[in-house]
Amino acid sequence: MTRGKFITLEGGEGVGKTTNLSFISSYLQNHGIDVIVTREPGGTRLAEKIRELLLDSNNESISESAELLLMFAARAQHIKHVIEPALSQGKWVLCDRFTDATYAYQGGGRNMNINTIEWLENLIQGTLRPDLTLLLDAPVEVGIERARDRGQLDRFESEKIDFFERVRQAYLRQAELYPERIKLIKADQPLSDVQNKLIDMLRPLIR
Amino acid sequence: MTRGKFITLEGGEGVGKTTNLSFISSYLQNHGIDVIVTREPGGTRLAEKIRELLLDSNNESISESAELLLMFAARAQHIKHVIEPALSQGKWVLCDRFTDATYAYQGGGRNMNINTIEWLENLIQGTLRPDLTLLLDAPVEVGIERARDRGQLDRFESEKIDFFERVRQAYLRQAELYPERIKLIKADQPLSDVQNKLIDMLRPLIR
Repeated sequence: MTRGKFITLEGGEGVGKTTNLSFISSYLQNHGIDVIVTREPGGTRLAEKIRELLLDSNNESISESAELLLMFAARAQHIKHVIEPALSQGKWVLCDRFTDATYAYQGGGRNMNINTIEWLENLIQGTLRPDLTLLLDAPVEVGIERARDRGQLDRFESEKIDFFERVRQAYLRQAELYPERIKLIKADQPLSDVQNKLIDMLRPLIR
Repeated sequence: MTRGKFITLEGGEGVGKTTNLSFISSYLQNHGIDVIVTREPGGTRLAEKIRELLLDSNNESISESAELLLMFAARAQHIKHVIEPALSQGKWVLCDRFTDATYAYQGGGRNMNINTIEWLENLIQGTLRPDLTLLLDAPVEVGIERARDRGQLDRFESEKIDFFERVRQAYLRQAELYPERIKLIKADQPLSDVQNKLIDMLRPLIR
């Protein structure tokens, strides 16, 4: 049994992740690939409960370290119960955000120590890394406006503009560090152009 | 303002922590000390929600690393919102279990790597350590029987006997490693003898 491919979709607020996630999923299915679509934080019953704690803007203020540990606790569950079993059964896994988001939001946004994140990444993931990461990038103002149009903001979406600027820069830094794995796609162009790029990135993986 | 003292009460199942916790609290109050009583995992709204996730025996199986990270996430909240503010206001904090329990349950019981626990302890606590830890110790069978008599078992209480034997041994190892901080008290003796010992241990701290 050939191991499945692990694809993650990344990007800040309002860059069109949801639309493109379902586009990618359809594209893969149309090529006969058995793909499961999941998300972080979340993906298992317990991890979704942790997600609720993380996104609840009415909660007591969450310490930065607690936030980071909750993210990786949810990730540990997700890997154990969903991602690893699927990959080893030959299924492909398409995940809405993964550890690059931790580098972006907790590392960039919250200015947390990168070595701490790396240490937790190795603890929880061992050698597991995505085979391909599609990073949708747009200027912060564009994304924020789209996210606000969707209505009620969660605890992360309520952050200030410079927070999102740091998130974006940290994502771009990840893309520079791992050019083989992370493919950058400009999200502020017509959707059909974005999706043509996505196809270009996915095609080499398919056969 | 003199900083308050941080006292933790530790021990396996059924060693009499609850009874002795309220005894210690009364004893301190009778000596004019302003003491808050709290517990781990828990002690804040969010940390209590994490406790629920940890103790729920109907949950999906929790990976060992997720369990460890959830413990420390709850601890980070507890320190930030309860323990540190109280200590710096000169209040004493009496806590039902703290990080020695992580060494005992996750380190001993689950055989998790001690260096991993130490790393997280330093990340979350910085230099914060209890001023005094009272460790109630009894042979495993004695404690388990008492715990079972209380009824419905949580996820930890449902573990097998060799799990609790490893927990006990890990607690004893902690006591050997930190003889200045951790005071061992035999819990399988008459309650009045246990409490006389507790007073002996507390008295030096009081003045």
